[in-house]
Amino acid sequence: MRMYDLITKKRNGGVLTDAEIEYMIGGYVQGDIVDYQMSAMLMAIWFKGMNAHEITELTKVMAKSGDMIDLSAIHGKKVDKHSTGGVGDKTTLIVAPIVAACGGKVAKMSGRGLGHTGGTVDKLEAIPGFRTVLEREEFFTIVNKCGLSLIGQSGNLAPADKKLYALRDVTATVDSIPLIASSIMSKKLAAGSDCILLDVKTGSGAFMKTFEDSVRLAQTMVAIGEGAGKRTVALITDMDTPLGHAIGNSLEVIESMDVLKGHGPQDLTEVSLQLAANMLYLVDKGSLATCRSLAEKSIADGTAFECFAAMVEAQGGDSSVLRNPEKFAKAPYSGDVLADRDGYIVRMNAEECGIASVVLGAGRETKESTIDFSAGIMMMKKYGEAVKKGEKLATLYTSKQETLAEAERMYKEAVVIGADKPAAKPLVYARVEKDHVEKF
Amino acid sequence: MRMYDLITKKRNGGVLTDAEIEYMIGGYVQGDIVDYQMSAMLMAIWFKGMNAHEITELTKVMAKSGDMIDLSAIHGKKVDKHSTGGVGDKTTLIVAPIVAACGGKVAKMSGRGLGHTGGTVDKLEAIPGFRTVLEREEFFTIVNKCGLSLIGQSGNLAPADKKLYALRDVTATVDSIPLIASSIMSKKLAAGSDCILLDVKTGSGAFMKTFEDSVRLAQTMVAIGEGAGKRTVALITDMDTPLGHAIGNSLEVIESMDVLKGHGPQDLTEVSLQLAANMLYLVDKGSLATCRSLAEKSIADGTAFECFAAMVEAQGGDSSVLRNPEKFAKAPYSGDVLADRDGYIVRMNAEECGIASVVLGAGRETKESTIDFSAGIMMMKKYGEAVKKGEKLATLYTSKQETLAEAERMYKEAVVIGADKPAAKPLVYARVEKDHVEKF
Repeated sequence: MRMYDLITKKRNGGVLTDAEIEYMIGGYVQGDIVDYQMSAMLMAIWFKGMNAHEITELTKVMAKSGDMIDLSAIHGKKVDKHSTGGVGDKTTLIVAPIVAACGGKVAKMSGRGLGHTGGTVDKLEAIPGFRTVLEREEFFTIVNKCGLSLIGQSGNLAPADKKLYALRDVTATVDSIPLIASSIMSKKLAAGSDCILLDVKTGSGAFMKTFEDSVRLAQTMVAIGEGAGKRTVALITDMDTPLGHAIGNSLEVIESMDVLKGHGPQDLTEVSLQLAANMLYLVDKGSLATCRSLAEKSIADGTAFECFAAMVEAQGGDSSVLRNPEKFAKAPYSGDVLADRDGYIVRMNAEECGIASVVLGAGRETKESTIDFSAGIMMMKKYGEAVKKGEKLATLYTSKQETLAEAERMYKEAVVIGADKPAAKPLVYARVEKDHVEKF
Repeated sequence: MRMYDLITKKRNGGVLTDAEIEYMIGGYVQGDIVDYQMSAMLMAIWFKGMNAHEITELTKVMAKSGDMIDLSAIHGKKVDKHSTGGVGDKTTLIVAPIVAACGGKVAKMSGRGLGHTGGTVDKLEAIPGFRTVLEREEFFTIVNKCGLSLIGQSGNLAPADKKLYALRDVTATVDSIPLIASSIMSKKLAAGSDCILLDVKTGSGAFMKTFEDSVRLAQTMVAIGEGAGKRTVALITDMDTPLGHAIGNSLEVIESMDVLKGHGPQDLTEVSLQLAANMLYLVDKGSLATCRSLAEKSIADGTAFECFAAMVEAQGGDSSVLRNPEKFAKAPYSGDVLADRDGYIVRMNAEECGIASVVLGAGRETKESTIDFSAGIMMMKKYGEAVKKGEKLATLYTSKQETLAEAERMYKEAVVIGADKPAAKPLVYARVEKDHVEKF
């Protein structure tokens, strides 16, 4: 077998066999296949795509290129979750304890933020003392005890994906649905859960800007999961507007706890309940309606919050900050963004809001950047709301005073006030299960 | 400027600006742009193509990446010739002295053979003592004195093309008309002649297998030449069947001399006269009809042959072998291929005949192979001719006796005898000049 022939085959629209995919990925990881051949192949895939079988096979081979985590030491059904990334998306901190409180198991490895989107691991590290690096044994013990554990990616998970992603990143081959789907799902297959809930964001702050592309990505990933023997469901959720009112690590932990205590913002609570209900559905807790009731009940009776607090303590964190949010370190500088006219918020560009929060110190511009946990944005007014001239739109928080003016300018550009009340937008656009797409 | 953005632009069907093409090629030659980015770009070009302006600019930038040969020391109009390569294609040895005899100047650098196609430099080196490496001064002096000089490629000609071609060769991006055309023409622009005749082969033994692709390639190359200020004409000639009766280096020199002496095979003579007439037309020797007459006369009166002999002597070769072909070293082993039935030759696959000659030792399988000048094939029967069972189709010559059986098997597979006389095929299919395609 020669890589040259495989490039030619894909370039001409052919279908790669299982053996060819294995040869290609194995050879690339081992260094027998060089970058310049793989980049030509990636560009050929960008143009010609892959069929469902090829994508599933590619994903499985990438997953098997490293550790395949064995979660059998954890009792009960394990459900994983993946979000394609958004601004203000702190749902993992909410849905994982809800699922745990209702009897599901969440043994989840999360990522860090980069660019305009945040990462669960960074948010967790805003909790004083919280350890995101655990030995495998301790990880299992905590899930068995608390129903959940959230840690950073550890071990050698899908190294083929890591190497391929680095190459795609410099060869303009990132935005290809087969390649995005196989990249995400290879890590999910390797992470060992029994079933997977996917949160595919759509809109200005999402990687997928259109609903159609988001559905295609969701369908592709669901097909991979099911093809690899794991029950998989996807929700297409809005990321045109940031989720909730808080952007920034401490601020988002506080807001997540608000939801778990029953007084979080409506949009974030609703999206979290739908995500949690689907995760419970995947671990066989009943119909979607039943699962939704279970999720609501776990908030109302405080069990979800207690699951989260127990996990924080088990991982060395100070759970008192969850109960008393004022104990979180405060940013030394803040500034308000005021409305410069009467009207309604008709546009709220999530990506631009995210970038403003990065400027304040809440995120990373490069992998080497350090994060200011107290920095971020509290949004008082969101899409569709009425505002008066001079009214507070948001408060910006930072440890670097000199960033306030720039962040304010950016935030004002991201948030447009118009004369007329805009049409309401759904929070969840669709649900994808196997071959079925249900639009809401 | 970032290569990443240029890849994205081309991938999305955009048009690269002159500055972008210069940045890309300059950066690649200097090593600032890495192979894996260039291969992604090449694949994007393979899919999206380039417009006429982009191709001309790419070619000029590649030409200027190395030496631009100054032929002004040679008096009169210089005409270059390029063949896309074929089996039994020895026309350079014939047309260059015809043009010289009629007052044109041919200062030509030629290539070596690789794979199933031969190369002019190898054929010339079959002449004892002939030097294909000359200092620039001597090269000019010989052209001024004899009207022609044929040498190997020397100097640093279009290094950008060399580097790009090596990458295309391993990334399945060779067969792209913009890339083929710019590769060929960059070297022609750098080689310094005033005008260029292109012999674009078409058919089973050619790189371009179909007439349509051959015309597209010819038109693209003519547009590049004209766009760079050089009069350029292309002929589309047949390479479905090998040209002439001889394949192999000494055998082809002998056959070329037969043509110059006025008793060569009809097909080779006719193609050579048409090529030579067009070269004379390009150096302003009159109408095509006038130029054809001049070319015929130079054969009839022996002046073309004498020009060739003078050049051979000037380059240290033994011209007596040209006058007495029996003085060429003979291959120690030979074998006849006989017809196994009565009928007509209905198919003669040029590529397969070429490969059979390589097996006998007449060509190179890899760049490192050495050539047996005496090896090759003399074809007694060609496409369309009647044969009787047991009649000689060809004689194979080699210095490695063990290759005869394999070459005979291959030759028999390449040459198919059928019951009915097949339709005649043209030798020259079309002529391309500027925007005009004349089909014959």
